[in-house]
Amino acid sequence: MDKKSKKGTSLGLHPRWRVTAGKNIALGPGKMDLLTLIGETGSIGKAAGKMGMSYMRAWSLIKTMNECFHLPVLVTERGGRERGGATLTDTGKEVLKLYRQMEKGSLKAVQPKWRSLQRLLRT
Amino acid sequence: MDKKSKKGTSLGLHPRWRVTAGKNIALGPGKMDLLTLIGETGSIGKAAGKMGMSYMRAWSLIKTMNECFHLPVLVTERGGRERGGATLTDTGKEVLKLYRQMEKGSLKAVQPKWRSLQRLLRT
Repeated sequence: MDKKSKKGTSLGLHPRWRVTAGKNIALGPGKMDLLTLIGETGSIGKAAGKMGMSYMRAWSLIKTMNECFHLPVLVTERGGRERGGATLTDTGKEVLKLYRQMEKGSLKAVQPKWRSLQRLLRT
Repeated sequence: MDKKSKKGTSLGLHPRWRVTAGKNIALGPGKMDLLTLIGETGSIGKAAGKMGMSYMRAWSLIKTMNECFHLPVLVTERGGRERGGATLTDTGKEVLKLYRQMEKGSLKAVQPKWRSLQRLLRT
């Protein structure tokens, strides 16, 4: 959704949906990128590394997500906080899919307004 | 967009659109709330205060916005950084209007997915 102008300043529009559950942030762009990377790498440690995030920080985000949903979003091979493999559950995959569909659908919905906004922005 | 359940955990869905212009964040929820409050109070200082933000921080956000658009988003009575009154320009009003329309339109567009997501969330 980036637009590169002749002068080289690219304009970008980014949906950064946040889902709150009471005081918790159940979902947001960072948590979704983390889940995506865990799905790709099969490892919390590798996913955290790619995001420049500590393992403990990644685990804390996962813990919050797991607490917010009826079922956990991922399972670890040896359970708990050990650094074994990690796999998204069906809930995790469904949450990720719905979030990405929300991003895509909302980007599409705002295109006319975004075009108006772009005309006001320097490029 | 909050949903209070019988058990009292409210679920909320928040569009937090971010507009980037090169490395700058031209618009985001914080900048938009600041513009809204400046429009309401007519004062950068009062708007900053309501957001628990320093005057310098508010001014820095406004400076970034002004740099990103062809025309400034607000004018101050005595110009520069003095603590006089502040008024949104036509550009400022238009930006704010388009941003709020994007929020509203995108929330509407994602309702079916959001209902699916809510079923997975604890309440």
